[in-house]
Amino acid sequence: MLDKLLNSINSTLDSNRAKKYKHQAHQLLHRSFDQHITLAVTGFSRSGKTAFITALVEQLTKQANKQNLPFFDVVQSERLIATKTIPQDILALPTFAYKQAIASLTDKTPKWPDSTQRINTLRLALKYQPKSGLRSHITDVSTLIIDLVDYPGEWLMDLPMLSLSFEQWSSEQLALLNQKPRSFCSRELLTAIASLDLDAPVDESKLAEIAEQYKILLQQFKQEMKLTILQPGRVLIPGDLAGAPLLMFFPVNFSNKNKVIEGSNLAHLQKRYQAYIKEVVTPFYQNYFCKFDRQIILVDLLNALSQGANVLAEQKNAIEQLLQHFNYGQSSFIKRLFSPKIDKLLFAANKSDHLSSEHHKDLAILLNNLVQQSQNELKFDGVKIETMAMSSVCATKAVEVKDKKNKIIKCIYGKEINSGNWMTYLPAQPPMRQLNEYEWPNEGFSFPEFYPLLSNDNKLRHIRLDHVFEFLLGDKLR
Amino acid sequence: MLDKLLNSINSTLDSNRAKKYKHQAHQLLHRSFDQHITLAVTGFSRSGKTAFITALVEQLTKQANKQNLPFFDVVQSERLIATKTIPQDILALPTFAYKQAIASLTDKTPKWPDSTQRINTLRLALKYQPKSGLRSHITDVSTLIIDLVDYPGEWLMDLPMLSLSFEQWSSEQLALLNQKPRSFCSRELLTAIASLDLDAPVDESKLAEIAEQYKILLQQFKQEMKLTILQPGRVLIPGDLAGAPLLMFFPVNFSNKNKVIEGSNLAHLQKRYQAYIKEVVTPFYQNYFCKFDRQIILVDLLNALSQGANVLAEQKNAIEQLLQHFNYGQSSFIKRLFSPKIDKLLFAANKSDHLSSEHHKDLAILLNNLVQQSQNELKFDGVKIETMAMSSVCATKAVEVKDKKNKIIKCIYGKEINSGNWMTYLPAQPPMRQLNEYEWPNEGFSFPEFYPLLSNDNKLRHIRLDHVFEFLLGDKLR
Repeated sequence: MLDKLLNSINSTLDSNRAKKYKHQAHQLLHRSFDQHITLAVTGFSRSGKTAFITALVEQLTKQANKQNLPFFDVVQSERLIATKTIPQDILALPTFAYKQAIASLTDKTPKWPDSTQRINTLRLALKYQPKSGLRSHITDVSTLIIDLVDYPGEWLMDLPMLSLSFEQWSSEQLALLNQKPRSFCSRELLTAIASLDLDAPVDESKLAEIAEQYKILLQQFKQEMKLTILQPGRVLIPGDLAGAPLLMFFPVNFSNKNKVIEGSNLAHLQKRYQAYIKEVVTPFYQNYFCKFDRQIILVDLLNALSQGANVLAEQKNAIEQLLQHFNYGQSSFIKRLFSPKIDKLLFAANKSDHLSSEHHKDLAILLNNLVQQSQNELKFDGVKIETMAMSSVCATKAVEVKDKKNKIIKCIYGKEINSGNWMTYLPAQPPMRQLNEYEWPNEGFSFPEFYPLLSNDNKLRHIRLDHVFEFLLGDKLR
Repeated sequence: MLDKLLNSINSTLDSNRAKKYKHQAHQLLHRSFDQHITLAVTGFSRSGKTAFITALVEQLTKQANKQNLPFFDVVQSERLIATKTIPQDILALPTFAYKQAIASLTDKTPKWPDSTQRINTLRLALKYQPKSGLRSHITDVSTLIIDLVDYPGEWLMDLPMLSLSFEQWSSEQLALLNQKPRSFCSRELLTAIASLDLDAPVDESKLAEIAEQYKILLQQFKQEMKLTILQPGRVLIPGDLAGAPLLMFFPVNFSNKNKVIEGSNLAHLQKRYQAYIKEVVTPFYQNYFCKFDRQIILVDLLNALSQGANVLAEQKNAIEQLLQHFNYGQSSFIKRLFSPKIDKLLFAANKSDHLSSEHHKDLAILLNNLVQQSQNELKFDGVKIETMAMSSVCATKAVEVKDKKNKIIKCIYGKEINSGNWMTYLPAQPPMRQLNEYEWPNEGFSFPEFYPLLSNDNKLRHIRLDHVFEFLLGDKLR
């Protein structure tokens, strides 16, 4: 229609006025063809969200060339004109602290940026030449607006709570607390919970005391055991909710048979749980989560492998719980919350540079294996899911070492965090599927952590970030 | 009706069953006669809100006797049965940290508790015997529920912004910045503001830079100059909003004649101002402020006097601006926000124990004088306003000292904060009205600050807190 209008203006008039109309029509078309993506950058705690966003911005704004991003079509075909950050729309959210993060990564002694403590956002505009079809015919330049949304990984794990009653949640959590590895340090809490008279009139200071004990245990699970299923997640990063009663609940031993007596300890715990779901979890997902178009979930499998069979199993369990909540077919409650928005979901095993290059594919296979089962079980109506192994910001480089028999061994080289030493390291081969406790090697897996390592000309290096961009953004840049 | 029902049950039946009915009817009456007050404890920063709430809870729960609270009728007439804290209703708000506050005040070396950083709440239940009338006739015991709501004083001063456009607000703030005492240190900011091209395309980092400069200046006005009109107040206590663009605005020099160009620096500043009003100030007042029944505004006049004529004038100005927004008659916008709720408002000049007893009344007169003018100008439809001088928690005790001529001088004794020394001090007489710069004594006023001072049996002491209770709560306890 507008195309015809332009042609008709072109052919019948040739005055300045016609040029003006033509220009206005161009602008109108241009504007209507601008596209918009809201990309959620998600991952459990310490999975590398901040580094990923920083790398994304840095690579697109400063390193977008064929050599660096060969598999990102808009770059490979030289159609990307420029990328820059522009003012965000949602003024009540903090802006992603890009400057601090890039300063930290490109410091003389590069360090990982601080982890995400609050939800935050950053808006990018990508100017590009459309490839073909209607858009390239009429407009010379299109713009893709990308809103990146980053939030603490801890909040993600609250999602499964949305469909659980306090009773169901309690029984799930108590089961976890009674299993390895949690059972190693949950005894004291379980004793305190058992000693609480659920039917007695509410004793606020007793509830506060046990809630504090539960909080300390969750912190321990996170920091020392690197576990993922930590609910309620806001207890770990409370922000303005610090000290609010709706954070002060914990799982208790009760069944439907128990009558919930008004004013009792149980009644108050249940009320707090419900308030948490209603006033914290639901608004977060309604205000932000259900507006995401696309999502990347970063997974640190190497850390999980280093921790042992239990932690890897927990990662798998957590991913499965999350995927269940992306399943639009089964739960009408969740369907109402998320509706039709997310159309692409990428699971990315981060830090693949911590392996020798020949094992990158094994990491992808392991992740795919962990996710596959859920994928098959569930029906992702219209959601395209992909798994990849990648590195947003490399921390090592590949080196070859000859052994005594002059055989070449592929190693990695970098500055190890624990010791602070530069070292050449031969990483283990990760398993290509989830091993159970009996299959787990006796010596375990050990993947040391490294500081970021820049290129010789002081730039960020990545592995397969161009593939990630192509999957998440490519179809919008044709 | 129910009264008759009870009598009829009484007279016609005399069985256990009847007693049971009677008990149930009693309970029904009891419940319907329970009353509820939401009391906002307000005051500019450092006016003693936390100490007031702590004293209120402590006095009502542990020291509610005739000797201690003679002017609180429910205590004087021995009708108060007991007071205790009970679980709050709003679970998303932190609970007032009473235990920490009282521990700090009653420590071996008593200290003032930490100041309010976030909105918080505490619920008290007062059980009492009604005095007369219907209630005393039918029920033996009534309960008054009091929700105390405490929030940072800085938030209060955002209220006047509700009715100002960005242009109006800018011109007010620039006028202030050009006046004493702000002008002593605002030159650099004003230069930066003048150098900003309002019509140029938005330069986010430039806006962030000037906003940061403005923030530092507001902090200086607060901490060093003890000024009160500091807008936007959230910049000083940002909580979860730290780093959000809607906090990054500052006054600029423009008039209606300036066209606001889309995408310009000016357009972005205006958008942020409007977002601040809409997403921060309005929700706070709608969710909390307009639900208050009663309000106490604590004013630290002695501190203002110590600082000088400018600071006292600013306190008066701030109070007047606030009172204008309590005026239901004039501004329909504000009327919509506050509607009919607040029916009693108390201005309390705190820390009257820092004066010798003969001057307490002067402090009340000064406060009344500061408030009087606004009271006369405005019509407080249905709101009862009172002014008092009081001390929630005494920090000194009265001592008499004989001078050389054996004349008795009324002094105060306490542990001074600055020097850390115990001292006997003869406080100045405060002026009974606002003095202008020329009337202000050359030597100024000096009122040192003291640590809390407990009674010999380690209890909190107060001045006229019973009058405060009677005004704020008395009519609900008859």
